[in-house]
Amino acid sequence: MFKTGLFSRTKSEESKRIYLDYAAATPLEVVVIEVMQKYLHLYGNPSAIHQEGVAAKDVINDCQTRIARLLQIKPEGVVFTSGGTESNNLALLGVVEQLHKTGRAYDSMEVLTTGIEHPSISETILELKNRGVLVKYVKVDEVGKVSLDSLRENLSNKTVLVSVALVNSEIGTIQNIGAIARVAHEVDKSILIHADAAQSPYWMSVELPRIGADIISLDAGKCGGPKGIGVLAWQKRVQLTPVLYGGGQQMGLRPGTESVILIAGATMAIEQAQRKWQERSEKVTKVRNECIKKLKEEILDVILNGAEGEERVANNINISILGLDTEFAVVVLDKNGIAASTKSACSGAGGGESVVVKQISNDTARATSTIRLTLGEETTINDCQKMIQVLKEHVEKMKDY
Amino acid sequence: MFKTGLFSRTKSEESKRIYLDYAAATPLEVVVIEVMQKYLHLYGNPSAIHQEGVAAKDVINDCQTRIARLLQIKPEGVVFTSGGTESNNLALLGVVEQLHKTGRAYDSMEVLTTGIEHPSISETILELKNRGVLVKYVKVDEVGKVSLDSLRENLSNKTVLVSVALVNSEIGTIQNIGAIARVAHEVDKSILIHADAAQSPYWMSVELPRIGADIISLDAGKCGGPKGIGVLAWQKRVQLTPVLYGGGQQMGLRPGTESVILIAGATMAIEQAQRKWQERSEKVTKVRNECIKKLKEEILDVILNGAEGEERVANNINISILGLDTEFAVVVLDKNGIAASTKSACSGAGGGESVVVKQISNDTARATSTIRLTLGEETTINDCQKMIQVLKEHVEKMKDY
Repeated sequence: MFKTGLFSRTKSEESKRIYLDYAAATPLEVVVIEVMQKYLHLYGNPSAIHQEGVAAKDVINDCQTRIARLLQIKPEGVVFTSGGTESNNLALLGVVEQLHKTGRAYDSMEVLTTGIEHPSISETILELKNRGVLVKYVKVDEVGKVSLDSLRENLSNKTVLVSVALVNSEIGTIQNIGAIARVAHEVDKSILIHADAAQSPYWMSVELPRIGADIISLDAGKCGGPKGIGVLAWQKRVQLTPVLYGGGQQMGLRPGTESVILIAGATMAIEQAQRKWQERSEKVTKVRNECIKKLKEEILDVILNGAEGEERVANNINISILGLDTEFAVVVLDKNGIAASTKSACSGAGGGESVVVKQISNDTARATSTIRLTLGEETTINDCQKMIQVLKEHVEKMKDY
Repeated sequence: MFKTGLFSRTKSEESKRIYLDYAAATPLEVVVIEVMQKYLHLYGNPSAIHQEGVAAKDVINDCQTRIARLLQIKPEGVVFTSGGTESNNLALLGVVEQLHKTGRAYDSMEVLTTGIEHPSISETILELKNRGVLVKYVKVDEVGKVSLDSLRENLSNKTVLVSVALVNSEIGTIQNIGAIARVAHEVDKSILIHADAAQSPYWMSVELPRIGADIISLDAGKCGGPKGIGVLAWQKRVQLTPVLYGGGQQMGLRPGTESVILIAGATMAIEQAQRKWQERSEKVTKVRNECIKKLKEEILDVILNGAEGEERVANNINISILGLDTEFAVVVLDKNGIAASTKSACSGAGGGESVVVKQISNDTARATSTIRLTLGEETTINDCQKMIQVLKEHVEKMKDY
C-alpha cells in the first residue's frame, strides 16, 4: 500500500523533498489509490453483455452521472478521454468538425483564442487553421487577462467558438469566462465558449453554469488522480464529432474500451478536489501571498508574472529574475531538495522562452528568466522559506561571477 | 491486494464463473498489478527536469527500450497511446497525413484493407476515404484469409499502405502478413504494411521482422495489462504525423503527460504475454480443438466460422447455430455462470449481424447467429464441457418452441 503526500516523495532520501510543481503533476490522493485498487478485479469489457461486462459498465455509468452532478450538467454531457490534451483536441476539433459535417465551410468559421494558451490548445488551433478555419487571437493585458475590448473587436458573425483557459497553467491568471461569454453572446448567442479547466479543480468550482462555459476540459492527473485520463464536459447545446475513429463507446464520441480503474480514479479525484476547494484555496492563498512577499523582500530583482489577489489561482507563483539562467536555478533548487519548473512541462520544462510571459510582457529577458512555483495543500511557509533561501544564495552566487 | 485469475471473477458468487471472453478483455496479471502498485508513488511529470520528473522519465525510457527489444525494433519506433483504437488511428491517419504533409495529394494515395477488420480500422479507413484517399477492399476467403490474388489485383503504384489484422478479433483467423508484404513489395517496395496485433501477444510472436510488418498496434488490455494504454511500434522507414495536437511528448508523435503506471503495466503485460506464448498457445490449442470437436458432436447445427488448425489463433472459437437467437443464448450462458459474446465488444457485443461472418460466408442467417468463445490460459476442457452442456440444453429447449 502506498501513501501519497510527503512520505511518498522521499522514497530514497532521508531529508524531506519540497515539491513545488503541482501544476505539472500531482501525487495520487489516498482515496484515489483505494478506489483504483478496489476495481482492479473489474476487468470485463464494458460493452459486453455478460456479468463481467455489466459490472464494469455500471461503474462507468455511475462515474459519468457523478461527474455530471458535480459539474451541474447532464450525464450525456460527460465523456472520458485519455487526458487534458485529448479533451482539448475533442473540444476544438469536435465542435468545428461537427459544424463542417453539417455543411459549414471551414473558411466560414472563426475560432477565437489568446496567445497564452497551453500547447494542447495552441497546437490544435494551428491544426484548425491548417484546415482552413479562421483563427483570431484576442489580446490579453499585462497580467494575462483577456481584454474584453479586444474580444469585442474580434468577434464576428463567423465566430463559432472561443477557447480560453480558466486558469493559465504558467502564470495562474484566472479568466472571467462568464464575462467573455456575455460579450460573445451579445454578437451571437450560438457562439460556444470552451474553457480549459485542467488547472482548476483543486482551487475553484468547475460547475459549468457557474463558470459560464459551454464546454470544459479536465485532467485527473492535475488534481490528485491518475495520469492518462481526462474529461470533456458540456452543456446541452454543444454538438461534437469524435476525433478518433472506432467502436461506438461513450455515445459514439470516444471509441476504445473504457478503463474502469482510470475512470473511477478520475471521478474520485475530481470529486475530492471539488469537495474542499474553497477551504484549500483560502489556506494556500495565504501561504502563496506570504511567499511572494518574502521573495520580493529577499531577492530584489524578482518580478511577479501574472495577476495579484483574486485573479490569481491560489497555488501559483511565477517570477522572473532578469539575467538569471533559471533553468540552472531550477537544477540547483532540485539538488537542494526543491522541485520547481521554469514554465509548463508540456512546453518543455527546461530552457527557452516562455511564450506566455513574452506575450504579456513583450520582454524577452523576462520571458527567458521565469521560474514557476506551484504549491500544494500541504505546502507550508517553512517550505517556501527554504526555497527562497536556496534561490537567494544561488542568485547572489551568480552575481559574483 | 487483488488476485487475478478465477478467484477475482467470483467476488460475489459461490460458484466459479467460466470466463470465455478473453478477446474482449483480460484480467490483470498479478505481476502487472505489482508493477503498477510499485510505481504509484512516481507521480512526477516526465517532462519536468527535477528529480520527480526524471524518475518518471527513466521508467518510461526503460519501458520504451524493453518494448523495442521485445519487438526487435529501435526504441525510436515505440510510442505509447491510449489503447489499440488510438494506435490504429495513429498508424493509418499518421502514415497518410505524413505523406500528405510532404505534398502528396489524398487522391494520389491508395489504402488497402479487408472487409473483416475491427471498427478501429474500418472506421478510420472510412475517415481516410472522407479525406479523399482511395480505399480498396481486398477479398478474403471463406475462412477469412486474405486472397493474395485479390491483393495483387488491387495493388497499384498509388498504394501507400496495406492494413490487415494479424489475428482477426472475431473469428481468430491468422493472416500471413509476410506473404502479404512480399506481394505488395513486388509492386512497390515503399508500400507500408500495418498489422493490428491487438489480439496476438498471448498467442504468437509479435516481433516485427518475424511478422513481416512495418507497423503494428498493440493493446495492453487484451493481454493481461491495464485498459487505456496501447503501443504503436514500427520499423525504421515509417514516417508518422500525430493525430492529436499538443506538447512535444514522445518524440512529438503523441502529446499529453505520459502515465508511468500505465506504461509500466503495459510493458510488463506485453513482456509476460510474449515470454510464454508458445507454451500457452500449444496448451490452449488442445483445449480449443477438443472443445470444437465436442461442440460439433453435441450440437448438430454448429458451424465453425474461421480457419482450422494453425491458421486459427489458439484461443478462439466462433460458431454459428442457424436459427438460434444467440444474443439470448449468451444471456442464458451468463445466467449459468459462463461469459461469452456474440461478436467483438467494439462492434456492439449484443445483437445484430456480424460483419466479419457475413463477409466470409455471404450468409445472413449465419452472420446473425454467431457465438464467440475466447479461452484463456487456464480454461479447462471441463469448463468447455459445462459451457457445451448449457448451450446444448438451451438449443434443445429453443427447438421445442
